[in-house]
Amino acid sequence: MPGKHKELSGEGLRGQSAGSTALCTVGKTGTGLTYRGYDITDLAEHAEFEEVAYLLLKGKLPTRTELAAYKTRLISFRGLPLALKNTLEQIPADAHPMDVMRTGCSMLGNLEQEHDFSEQQDKADRLLALLPAILCYWYRYSYHGVRIETYCDQDSLGGYFLKMLTGKTPSDLHIQVMQCSLVLYAEHEFNASTFSARVCASTLSDLHSCIATAIGTLRGPLHGGANEAAMGMIERWQSPDEAEAGILQMLANNEKVMGFGHAVYTEFDPRNVLIKRWAKKLAEEADDSVLYDMSERIEQVMKREKDLFCNVDFFHAPAYHFMAIPTKLFTPIFVMSRVTGWAAHVFEQRAHNRIIRPSADYIGPDHQEWLPIDERH
Amino acid sequence: MPGKHKELSGEGLRGQSAGSTALCTVGKTGTGLTYRGYDITDLAEHAEFEEVAYLLLKGKLPTRTELAAYKTRLISFRGLPLALKNTLEQIPADAHPMDVMRTGCSMLGNLEQEHDFSEQQDKADRLLALLPAILCYWYRYSYHGVRIETYCDQDSLGGYFLKMLTGKTPSDLHIQVMQCSLVLYAEHEFNASTFSARVCASTLSDLHSCIATAIGTLRGPLHGGANEAAMGMIERWQSPDEAEAGILQMLANNEKVMGFGHAVYTEFDPRNVLIKRWAKKLAEEADDSVLYDMSERIEQVMKREKDLFCNVDFFHAPAYHFMAIPTKLFTPIFVMSRVTGWAAHVFEQRAHNRIIRPSADYIGPDHQEWLPIDERH
Repeated sequence: MPGKHKELSGEGLRGQSAGSTALCTVGKTGTGLTYRGYDITDLAEHAEFEEVAYLLLKGKLPTRTELAAYKTRLISFRGLPLALKNTLEQIPADAHPMDVMRTGCSMLGNLEQEHDFSEQQDKADRLLALLPAILCYWYRYSYHGVRIETYCDQDSLGGYFLKMLTGKTPSDLHIQVMQCSLVLYAEHEFNASTFSARVCASTLSDLHSCIATAIGTLRGPLHGGANEAAMGMIERWQSPDEAEAGILQMLANNEKVMGFGHAVYTEFDPRNVLIKRWAKKLAEEADDSVLYDMSERIEQVMKREKDLFCNVDFFHAPAYHFMAIPTKLFTPIFVMSRVTGWAAHVFEQRAHNRIIRPSADYIGPDHQEWLPIDERH
Repeated sequence: MPGKHKELSGEGLRGQSAGSTALCTVGKTGTGLTYRGYDITDLAEHAEFEEVAYLLLKGKLPTRTELAAYKTRLISFRGLPLALKNTLEQIPADAHPMDVMRTGCSMLGNLEQEHDFSEQQDKADRLLALLPAILCYWYRYSYHGVRIETYCDQDSLGGYFLKMLTGKTPSDLHIQVMQCSLVLYAEHEFNASTFSARVCASTLSDLHSCIATAIGTLRGPLHGGANEAAMGMIERWQSPDEAEAGILQMLANNEKVMGFGHAVYTEFDPRNVLIKRWAKKLAEEADDSVLYDMSERIEQVMKREKDLFCNVDFFHAPAYHFMAIPTKLFTPIFVMSRVTGWAAHVFEQRAHNRIIRPSADYIGPDHQEWLPIDERH
């Protein structure tokens, strides 16, 4: 990682170490992203999302028996408390879905408090199981007036989300894509949302506070939301040629094209090829000859014109769109996955804790003499 | 500030600069704490809390006309939206009051979204005006089954809180003490809750996410809650002699005595003398000859035995207790005050933003070969 242990520069803490982790490397070895030493390509090609969640939260890959028990456990955690349903029903349809996720997580903390860190695995599993229910219950109620049942027999978290969102049993292909997507978003070292969760954890606060913090931090457009922005851009055009002309115009105007480049990866994002492959399969299944082709053209143009590569977010836009997921729900899916990484970082922070309390450079006024109110202007 | 710009040490970011601020100095000049250059002693002795809020949020001390207009504005913001009342009614009496504050703030973000940073002053003022209402509405409903009216003619935030908490018009003395207490807790540079709010702000997230983050971070026992812990300790004893024996026993057992010492101040906490004076006045008013005397004795014993001084939290315990504030509501009062400092830091972060994204030292396993599930143990 460039710049590590260099002279302090203050703003942004770029390249400065703020602690240690055994969870993840970004841009270091292999194809550039590992979870507990396992390459993201192996995980995305061979592992179910629940296997990855188990790896992150419990420290090792599960045996077949452990995995089956873990999935059964997560399924058993799918019931929404009545007080949480009532709260979600108070949130209007025009709310920001990330505000709904943050509020759902925060409300759960009132109803099922983490009294002691010995409960942390339970609380993390409960959040992992329940976040899709929180989103879909609010979405279906506020948009369609339907109170959905959140218990459901779908075996995987990806399938569970799609079933609750649409009310229909998802195809095997869609489940596979969702599971892969969740694997790709599960963990990414000390990004801003993970770091804020660790700052929160460092005061020994409860897990719900830490995860609500992370959700609120991911909500910012400099962090989450790039796949939503990419979708908003692509769907303005009707053909690959139109997309190419549009991108060239954007570049001429110095507009930012979302879904390209990365702060840490310099040559490619190892997650792109994995989600791109699935986006292509979904296009074939949907017999689409426009959206995927436009996306691929944009990738080519950006490479040719700017030598920039797609990051994980870009091909997620067509992939989610082919599965009929509303664009405004893209970032909450990130939450459903990343809650595993966030919680694992909270556990790690707690295990070797020192409160995170940096200093600041003072740039304000020198000592001010007190001025009685009637002498002020 | 010791250790600034020194070699990186990682964990805790102690003594490392994470940005710049014009809001506050801690342990630097005068009696050791300034808000925008004004000494805390001047502010606590001469300023109303709303003057300090204005100073922090708007950058200068208000004229008499500006202050009157600001107070009128805050009073006009005291109405709780129905959806927020309904949400607070879903939270049981045994919830953690800081979870209630975090959830109330988060829910408000759904109902009154900050769409644009041009709205930031409005949203901050609304939160400042409404946080006491959020706490008291939940408290009175869950404990006493009463749905309180949160519009109220009390002119000051301190008086407003006491009126809603008890339903009775508070005495001038109690209002003065609450206002002073709110001044003392309003701002304290890059402490953990302020820093996590700035990390959240650095992704350009909304104000409600930033404040919910700060509340969740303050909730941890290493940050907020010292005055609650001090109260819990003091009320175990019945007399100054018993308190002295108890403290000596705790020291002999190497137990931590809450409310003493400070990470940054080395000789004294400038806020202690200010709140201690009010605690004494309250004791005289209440004709109490035990609680204050016990507190003073504990201060003497800690000085004599450990050369440790009281921080801002210690004499807040008897002060709040004399005003009949339940101990579990002490930390939420901190929130009602510090929301001014947090919001001011968010504004500052936004004005000169760079996303806060540090690095981590990797201490995990080297590259792991993928192991098919049936080959695992």
